Amino acid sequence: MNNFWLTLPTEIFFGKGQLSVLGKELQKRGAKCVLLAYGHSSIKKNGIYDKVTAILNDAGIKFVELSGIDPNPRITSVAKGAALCRENNVDFIIAAGAGSVIDCCKAIAAARYYKGDPWDFFIRKASVTKALPICAILTLAATGSEMNGGCVLSNEATTEKLPMGSYKLKPRFSILDPEFTFTLPKYQTAAGIADITSHVFEQYFSNPDVPITDRLCEGVLKTIIECAPIVLEEPENYDARANIMWASTIALNSILGLGKEEDWATHMIEHEVSAQYDITHGVGLAILTPNWMKNVLSEETKAKFATYGRNVWNITGTDDMDISLKAIEKTAGFFKSLGIPTRLSELGIDDSRFEVMADSALKYHGIGGLKRLSKVDIIEILRNSL
Amino acid sequence: MNNFWLTLPTEIFFGKGQLSVLGKELQKRGAKCVLLAYGHSSIKKNGIYDKVTAILNDAGIKFVELSGIDPNPRITSVAKGAALCRENNVDFIIAAGAGSVIDCCKAIAAARYYKGDPWDFFIRKASVTKALPICAILTLAATGSEMNGGCVLSNEATTEKLPMGSYKLKPRFSILDPEFTFTLPKYQTAAGIADITSHVFEQYFSNPDVPITDRLCEGVLKTIIECAPIVLEEPENYDARANIMWASTIALNSILGLGKEEDWATHMIEHEVSAQYDITHGVGLAILTPNWMKNVLSEETKAKFATYGRNVWNITGTDDMDISLKAIEKTAGFFKSLGIPTRLSELGIDDSRFEVMADSALKYHGIGGLKRLSKVDIIEILRNSL
Repeated sequence: MNNFWLTLPTEIFFGKGQLSVLGKELQKRGAKCVLLAYGHSSIKKNGIYDKVTAILNDAGIKFVELSGIDPNPRITSVAKGAALCRENNVDFIIAAGAGSVIDCCKAIAAARYYKGDPWDFFIRKASVTKALPICAILTLAATGSEMNGGCVLSNEATTEKLPMGSYKLKPRFSILDPEFTFTLPKYQTAAGIADITSHVFEQYFSNPDVPITDRLCEGVLKTIIECAPIVLEEPENYDARANIMWASTIALNSILGLGKEEDWATHMIEHEVSAQYDITHGVGLAILTPNWMKNVLSEETKAKFATYGRNVWNITGTDDMDISLKAIEKTAGFFKSLGIPTRLSELGIDDSRFEVMADSALKYHGIGGLKRLSKVDIIEILRNSL
Repeated sequence: MNNFWLTLPTEIFFGKGQLSVLGKELQKRGAKCVLLAYGHSSIKKNGIYDKVTAILNDAGIKFVELSGIDPNPRITSVAKGAALCRENNVDFIIAAGAGSVIDCCKAIAAARYYKGDPWDFFIRKASVTKALPICAILTLAATGSEMNGGCVLSNEATTEKLPMGSYKLKPRFSILDPEFTFTLPKYQTAAGIADITSHVFEQYFSNPDVPITDRLCEGVLKTIIECAPIVLEEPENYDARANIMWASTIALNSILGLGKEEDWATHMIEHEVSAQYDITHGVGLAILTPNWMKNVLSEETKAKFATYGRNVWNITGTDDMDISLKAIEKTAGFFKSLGIPTRLSELGIDDSRFEVMADSALKYHGIGGLKRLSKVDIIEILRNSL
């Protein structure tokens, strides 16, 4: 078990009606002027925008707005948001939306105090020294951004999609009301579930084995498998929505990676696909994951996949390789059951940019923890995903 | 799933050699004069005392000492510690020891700013408004006190043992080095494991069912069952010690109770036994738990026990009551395998004070979440534990 440092400064207000704490929590933290950031029209349609602005007005907190943050958020929104913060003396950011909005707000929070190009954080030219405090109001269970310090932004000018992170970017508090996810389209719900599942895999399938962390990972996976069909069938089933929402937070708030190296190769490859084709992140992960599994399965790694098969899918038997292959089939079947595409070709993607993607994936650092992937591996995974 | 508020302000430094962060972390938080609190001689024997005092001297941080905190810590130590803090302008407390030391320090941290009798916190006559910050240096995996806001103190004058808690008492940071547990006597290690297991049960066996939280509980239980025999056989097995240590923290840092009502009846009964006979808390829990399970098992609760049997002990079958009974047998067998007493009579306890204990357990509030226990229930559980 590797050494670790854990800090979880984000307070969580979870459940029905928790938005009511917003005004008091902002006042407690001395907020005077807030940046209210969101995506396109959904928070206006579902009433969250009206509720938040009413709370801010009641609390006597000024606000400026940044709207139009895209599902694969762009660095251009960051520059715009940081400028708004500087011009208006913003002292707190409200990220009302999915992970894309929260991620964008993290980059804004850091860029507010940085004089250079915000993209510098993503190409490791700058690191976060100071950041505005953030509150997240979550509307989609997926990225876990509501309780971690990471963010992923896209740069259209360079066709890159890169992650960065700092504990200083962890939200001060997050409001998680499962009812806010009732009106999501089925496709987005499903893509979010695929994203959550992938987050667990990225931590679980890595060395060393750490029983306490591995068993917690399995618990989250079993929850997702149990609750996913329910939320897809009954979008207003509160308990199923609540379990998926909290699973999404737990899946990427550090707890499931403690003591382990983690992997993240599948995410790095998916970021390349998204950078080139602007696809839905969770859908890309669902397509790539079973093919990543097949690529890394070997005599060295089969024990791990067999443990997964036994503990998560209740597959019995004594042959680890056989159980591993069945577990990968089960995984592919699970993603298929979500009703999202299972092949890149369904998204209009062909092999014409595979070389570019593989080179780009390896541009800044090697990828993969369980197995260090070569360019050949990456292209094989992409080709098998076509 | 019930609404919840979660705050986890305790930073965790986990692993070999992490004590080295102590000086810097205290300086970062502005500590000028520290109360160094510990139990009897163990931290002097295993070298932790010398290391900590050397670090404090190197960092130029003054300190005063409070030693002799008992395994069932007494309210008299709290008064003494609070006086030391006042007289020396102490601004930070280091709790170096097991849960007993950390619990005692929490009460001291609150009592420092309270003019009345510190016992008032425990009989609900006062609540914590302000507290000194605490750092825990953990030497026994058991109570989870290193990452929560609860404490349990004994009052010899009133023959009471009562809990109290506040988020303000959560340690600011805790240092968890599994090597610090290598030299523990087997009996203490085993009693600690029983305590951890009981913490999971107290949260798991409660309403409502919350898949995400329940599956995490099962993951911790499976880890304990896997690692317990290893640490008992090989006390210097780092990985097994590390997994048990982190399991102890996770078991009682809120995560395993989120969205649930929790139960805690077994703990409340054990506190009465400890208050009367000063026994080892974990041993008391190991004896009482299977008998609590038998008392609360019914047509209404059998589904929960059967899920436990299936998911934790891999018991197969279709009859929930049958699986439940087998799961309780497995639980009793697990506690027995730890090599600690399994009957109260082995500790010299007879039924002469059962009435007093049952009355006292019900003195301040009802007990039990899964089943509200009557006086008759409590006496039955105690009698079956004889």
